[in-house]
Amino acid sequence: MDKNEAGWKQIEELAGERGIQSMKAAEEFSPRLARLAVEFGYGDVYASDALTLKQRSLITLSSLITQGDPGTGLSYHFRAALRIGVTKEEILELINHCTAYAGFPKCINALFIFKEAYETYEEENK
Amino acid sequence: MDKNEAGWKQIEELAGERGIQSMKAAEEFSPRLARLAVEFGYGDVYASDALTLKQRSLITLSSLITQGDPGTGLSYHFRAALRIGVTKEEILELINHCTAYAGFPKCINALFIFKEAYETYEEENK
Amino acid sequence: MDKNEAGWKQIEELAGERGIQSMKAAEEFSPRLARLAVEFGYGDVYASDALTLKQRSLITLSSLITQGDPGTGLSYHFRAALRIGVTKEEILELINHCTAYAGFPKCINALFIFKEAYETYEEENK
Amino acid sequence: MDKNEAGWKQIEELAGERGIQSMKAAEEFSPRLARLAVEFGYGDVYASDALTLKQRSLITLSSLITQGDPGTGLSYHFRAALRIGVTKEEILELINHCTAYAGFPKCINALFIFKEAYETYEEENK
Amino acid sequence: MDKNEAGWKQIEELAGERGIQSMKAAEEFSPRLARLAVEFGYGDVYASDALTLKQRSLITLSSLITQGDPGTGLSYHFRAALRIGVTKEEILELINHCTAYAGFPKCINALFIFKEAYETYEEENK
Amino acid sequence: MDKNEAGWKQIEELAGERGIQSMKAAEEFSPRLARLAVEFGYGDVYASDALTLKQRSLITLSSLITQGDPGTGLSYHFRAALRIGVTKEEILELINHCTAYAGFPKCINALFIFKEAYETYEEENK
Repeated sequence: MDKNEAGWKQIEELAGERGIQSMKAAEEFSPRLARLAVEFGYGDVYASDALTLKQRSLITLSSLITQGDPGTGLSYHFRAALRIGVTKEEILELINHCTAYAGFPKCINALFIFKEAYETYEEENK
Repeated sequence: MDKNEAGWKQIEELAGERGIQSMKAAEEFSPRLARLAVEFGYGDVYASDALTLKQRSLITLSSLITQGDPGTGLSYHFRAALRIGVTKEEILELINHCTAYAGFPKCINALFIFKEAYETYEEENK
Repeated sequence: MDKNEAGWKQIEELAGERGIQSMKAAEEFSPRLARLAVEFGYGDVYASDALTLKQRSLITLSSLITQGDPGTGLSYHFRAALRIGVTKEEILELINHCTAYAGFPKCINALFIFKEAYETYEEENK
Repeated sequence: MDKNEAGWKQIEELAGERGIQSMKAAEEFSPRLARLAVEFGYGDVYASDALTLKQRSLITLSSLITQGDPGTGLSYHFRAALRIGVTKEEILELINHCTAYAGFPKCINALFIFKEAYETYEEENK
Repeated sequence: MDKNEAGWKQIEELAGERGIQSMKAAEEFSPRLARLAVEFGYGDVYASDALTLKQRSLITLSSLITQGDPGTGLSYHFRAALRIGVTKEEILELINHCTAYAGFPKCINALFIFKEAYETYEEENK
Repeated sequence: MDKNEAGWKQIEELAGERGIQSMKAAEEFSPRLARLAVEFGYGDVYASDALTLKQRSLITLSSLITQGDPGTGLSYHFRAALRIGVTKEEILELINHCTAYAGFPKCINALFIFKEAYETYEEENK
């Protein structure tokens, strides 16, 4: 399986049909950015077994909170975290943990983004 | 056990005698900052069981890499990670993972900080 | 008065009924994050007399502008600043001052967030 | 020609009537911030011939992407870039280039901001 | 008095002979950057009376801590703060205050930079 | 030519023997991080002709200044810029330009890093 194929599979595992659609939306306007994201970001980076998918999810969320992601990236990765089995309690505690390292304002912003992502996810999966 | 006591115990578990010494150095110049760090940062934030110490370590390192920590914080937490059982392979892969989310320059800086922290740690524990 | 009580009082002084409501909204989804914010952020940090409330307000706003807060945090703290007596002229000059240290784009974003916060505040208090 | 006049001319060259209007909107609420932006930002910084306007545009966009501009600044400068002759292909590749230095999340956010700015610009200029 | 003259005077008031020397060092390698810093940064921004010099000092320090300044900027402005009458206690509390907004790692880094700046300053002024 | 080979060639063109040595130093400790940097960062990202190498250099430097790179990345890329024909005057003006977008402190830090990189480069190439 080449990196491109592996990358799309990884997106599907992580973010499902919605993840695929959102990468397709990027691809339509910038095929090369989508290819770089799929092949490098997902196909190559995620390929190693040195970390579990769940560990990667915690690392990604901490990076996005710390860089002050305005919402799209955080929504996508909060949802992905729930899909792969990170619990609501773990995500809430990750946000708590980040207050000491990245300050409260970014964490409170993240909390409300998570609230919305969580409620949508629950709605769709009940 | 109150938060102050819990905080100092947490520092010892995470960072050992060296961690204690480094907080004492801060305390000498700013008792209040040290107290806030010990009671809130360690005594309160780390008290919840919703995340394991190892998960907290990955989250902390991702935040420090993303905010471009110049070295002191990263050294301290790389060392703490090794102490509590995060493996060299996991830390290296965490750095790899962050390249996609925070860019290469911060990750390459982190790599050389980790290299030094790792070698010192190995030297002291052989 | 314990930290929890002191924290809620501090929020009320700083941000009034609206501040209380907004912390309650966070508390409903994440009681622990709200408790950490109330007890540490407000109850403990604000307790020292070494800085006046007005000085703290300037420091908070400068930090939020510099970290590129997307709006919620800035709105809340612009409003709090007006409540505790920081003048419109002082806030505008704080934004001017930050252009030299954090660059124009973050300051122009902050200006329009302040404009909206200021107009709402004036409307409600005339 | 003094810096004030030079600054307004520079804004017009870079961003046209819309650029003028947006600076006037800032000026109405904060005359001093607008004057600092016009005289220093545009009148003085852009006055040197050591870089072409197109080179300045690439530098500005890279800085805005890297600092995670939430949209207003990026929209303004994407549009300015198109006006002064930076091609769609160059801008898309600038976004691709930044993935390696600032990470994917900021670049994907920038891509969708550019998509909207580009489509509006095309619509108005056909 | 023109902006250039006003700027150099401002640097002297804020940072004394050492401040002048450090701007001269920049000027030798980049006369234009020094001129922009002197005329805009000091000559124009600091000229307004809407904030006191002491308020500006708090705002500057909060911005530098939040952006993770690696040391040169913070040393210079900690020293300037002491010169113009911000007390050691106020600076320590500013660092404490920033823990809630920018996280502990940046504040602990700032603490040790301040410790060194403070001790040098005391040594020279006893 | 595959991406790995293309990447190493790109590093050589950009940063010469010293660039190769510095990537080899990273490779020794983390072969996978070096491979990701070489294949993605250099082999894939730099492969497109949509931007010239000189344009990429300006974009990279602006990103590094804006993210507050502590020195290693900036030194490497200032040197690379000089090698591929970006002039001293263009680099100085890029730093000037960034003052308006990222603030003075990061630009003054960058100036002194560039001064050292420039003097070393001149020394070696006379």
